[in-house]
Amino acid sequence: MPKIVDHEERRKHIAEATWRIILNQGMKGASVRNIAKEAGLSLGALRHYFSTQDELLTFAMNLVKERATERIKLIAARDVSPMEKALLVLQELVPVDRHKMAETEVWFAFIFYMKYKHTGSDTEKDGVYDVVKVVVDYLEQQQLLRPGMDVSLETERLYALVDGIALHALFDERRSSRERIICILESHLESICRSEALTHD
Amino acid sequence: MPKIVDHEERRKHIAEATWRIILNQGMKGASVRNIAKEAGLSLGALRHYFSTQDELLTFAMNLVKERATERIKLIAARDVSPMEKALLVLQELVPVDRHKMAETEVWFAFIFYMKYKHTGSDTEKDGVYDVVKVVVDYLEQQQLLRPGMDVSLETERLYALVDGIALHALFDERRSSRERIICILESHLESICRSEALTHD
Repeated sequence: MPKIVDHEERRKHIAEATWRIILNQGMKGASVRNIAKEAGLSLGALRHYFSTQDELLTFAMNLVKERATERIKLIAARDVSPMEKALLVLQELVPVDRHKMAETEVWFAFIFYMKYKHTGSDTEKDGVYDVVKVVVDYLEQQQLLRPGMDVSLETERLYALVDGIALHALFDERRSSRERIICILESHLESICRSEALTHD
Repeated sequence: MPKIVDHEERRKHIAEATWRIILNQGMKGASVRNIAKEAGLSLGALRHYFSTQDELLTFAMNLVKERATERIKLIAARDVSPMEKALLVLQELVPVDRHKMAETEVWFAFIFYMKYKHTGSDTEKDGVYDVVKVVVDYLEQQQLLRPGMDVSLETERLYALVDGIALHALFDERRSSRERIICILESHLESICRSEALTHD
């Protein structure tokens, strides 16, 4: 292993090792011991950078957010129809591939960890709701929502749908087929949008 | 405490103590130690009836299922419109009151416990999917679904919606308002049913 002197750089190195483990073994394998081994560090050295499981999870969680935000920014800049854009953004929130499945694992492990191990909860930080809200607001601004839609209720409904899909994919591989997930999201968007929005695609 | 000699009766007594704790403190408080205290038993005596956290969770989980099944049977027998019946059954699956919130806590704790502590998963036993399937099949048999609806896809969509609602209510009290949850379910049913179905209510 090359000598790494910079503190942040080594944390990043550890975070990457953590991700490799989660990708291959799921959160189940992400013990401090396994991560130290994967990163080529002693347990003591690892603890110097992340003293608790909490700190490590928070770091992995922030990585999920940063990466998703980057991808969503790229989609927002793309030259596709509003409906397609909405669908592509929603796909960033559900486990449609191995990488996003790892992100989903981290996300759920994080929120449950926060709920059961801590006194305070950190759900204010839920980025999924924010993204869903942006999508529904965007469809409304583009005048694509069906007349009479309650924007706030539709945001809650889509938010619940997205996290329900993620939850089920996590627990049941038969439910994590990429085609199936996209089909559900697409049919949901169609049900809340004017029929004109669809023919523009 | 009255003397209880029967094994099953004492297990039930412990299960009731477990439920009181979950109702008042959530799953966070449901440690073996707290349960023993609430049941008026020593830790050793409790372990005689439930040797592991796993066994206790499974027992609590089965209680959730039995109770929900009883309630759903009563609703099925009621003389209300099909739409109303569908909505009432769906309300049994989401935390619209303190009791159902406790059931939701047990349910999620159980599935996450099974996922992360065991090698095999037990998601085959997911009764929520079965109930949702019964509801959508029932609406179809009553010819209330909009023409062209994909029954299998609509079942998946409603299943994800119901568990997403439950998940969010669990993590964010602002999302657990009874009125809000019923409103989302009602509006979802309206969006998949013929308009004639609604005027019959």
